[in-house]
Amino acid sequence: PPGRKVLIVYAHQEPKSLNGSLKRVAVEELSKQGCSVTVSDLYAMQFEPRATRNDIVGCLHNSEEFNYAVETWEAYKRGGLSSDVSEEQRKVQEADLLIFQFPLYWFSMPAIMKGWMDRVLVQGFAHEFPNCYDSGLLKNKLSLFSFTTGGSEEMYAKGGISGDIRYLLWPMQHGIMHFCGVKVLAPHICFAPEYVSEEKRKEMLNAWAQRLKTIWNEEPINCSPEWYFK
Amino acid sequence: PPGRKVLIVYAHQEPKSLNGSLKRVAVEELSKQGCSVTVSDLYAMQFEPRATRNDIVGCLHNSEEFNYAVETWEAYKRGGLSSDVSEEQRKVQEADLLIFQFPLYWFSMPAIMKGWMDRVLVQGFAHEFPNCYDSGLLKNKLSLFSFTTGGSEEMYAKGGISGDIRYLLWPMQHGIMHFCGVKVLAPHICFAPEYVSEEKRKEMLNAWAQRLKTIWNEEPINCSPEWYFK
Repeated sequence: PPGRKVLIVYAHQEPKSLNGSLKRVAVEELSKQGCSVTVSDLYAMQFEPRATRNDIVGCLHNSEEFNYAVETWEAYKRGGLSSDVSEEQRKVQEADLLIFQFPLYWFSMPAIMKGWMDRVLVQGFAHEFPNCYDSGLLKNKLSLFSFTTGGSEEMYAKGGISGDIRYLLWPMQHGIMHFCGVKVLAPHICFAPEYVSEEKRKEMLNAWAQRLKTIWNEEPINCSPEWYFK
Repeated sequence: PPGRKVLIVYAHQEPKSLNGSLKRVAVEELSKQGCSVTVSDLYAMQFEPRATRNDIVGCLHNSEEFNYAVETWEAYKRGGLSSDVSEEQRKVQEADLLIFQFPLYWFSMPAIMKGWMDRVLVQGFAHEFPNCYDSGLLKNKLSLFSFTTGGSEEMYAKGGISGDIRYLLWPMQHGIMHFCGVKVLAPHICFAPEYVSEEKRKEMLNAWAQRLKTIWNEEPINCSPEWYFK
């Protein structure tokens, strides 16, 4: 709906990839709805994934023994995080919906996107004990993991060699998003696009566009162990 | 035992941290046993976590549409991976045991270590269909995830707010190590070291040294869904 803001955090090296197309489809469909859409194209930005002392501008809270979590928390409070991190935080703060678009690498997101999580979702900004999980600081936002796999749907079935795909969603959806208070919509998964026909890939893009038409009516999943492991 | 080779992949910014001490304890104890120990100190190496075209030396297999998995597979076969990646592969190839030492970041490893997995364990080297899981190309090696947490053991208990700690081990132990044929020893977890006394932290270091004394007698876990989710 007009006025809603969406941040797409996108991690693929190749604009011509299916991930690139899925990202474009989302920008088009959501813009058509009147949403304001921002894309963080991590590879194009050469986004820094490493959590280091460089993320803190100026002096350290404790220069004797570097503790990344403590230092970024302190830096956040005094406005002293590096500009690439605070820029991403600004985008997150404004967004109603966060879409993560990526190819599954090793049962998880690519390192460049994991670095976005590690560096952007700092204490004070995204959570601050006891404000975690349902009372996380980013509550009232939605998230959606949209990704492609190398393995087939059969491999990722319960009893399949790679196990239920939901098993690997736990760290990302519960451990990151839920921890920050962000509600989680059902993931959008394109299985093994490299092994299907061009026509089937077009269907995948259409299915994503169709889903986005009614995305604002969706109810979040119940992000508890039952959803993942039952 | 003399002759055994160990690679410790280590990801912490601060040598004075508990992770730094756990790494040192492992180097000392294993060296004392006569093992040959190599450490990849990822932050000190400024290890590159991003999977990009820079990982391929020379021409691409398909320069029209960049596919990282295909390009690194082809590059591996012709000896055309970037030297930082092939150097890590050489270390892995020589090792009998891989120890991953890190602080848990967001229910997973820090991005810099995820990037090590993404870039080093390429097709052709670590797996090559149908050589995956029990017939992965790195079979006859052992692995062990040794990490510290922010949350307490109670939070990571079954029924705890963060769920059974084993849930989050699935992508790392099964999705990465088992996929490559590497057997998995029980993880070594130091819960919430920042919230315990200096004496308790010393006990943690001692417990790790003690475990390493008999590490070569340990049986791998049964890396199947039952271990993780039952």
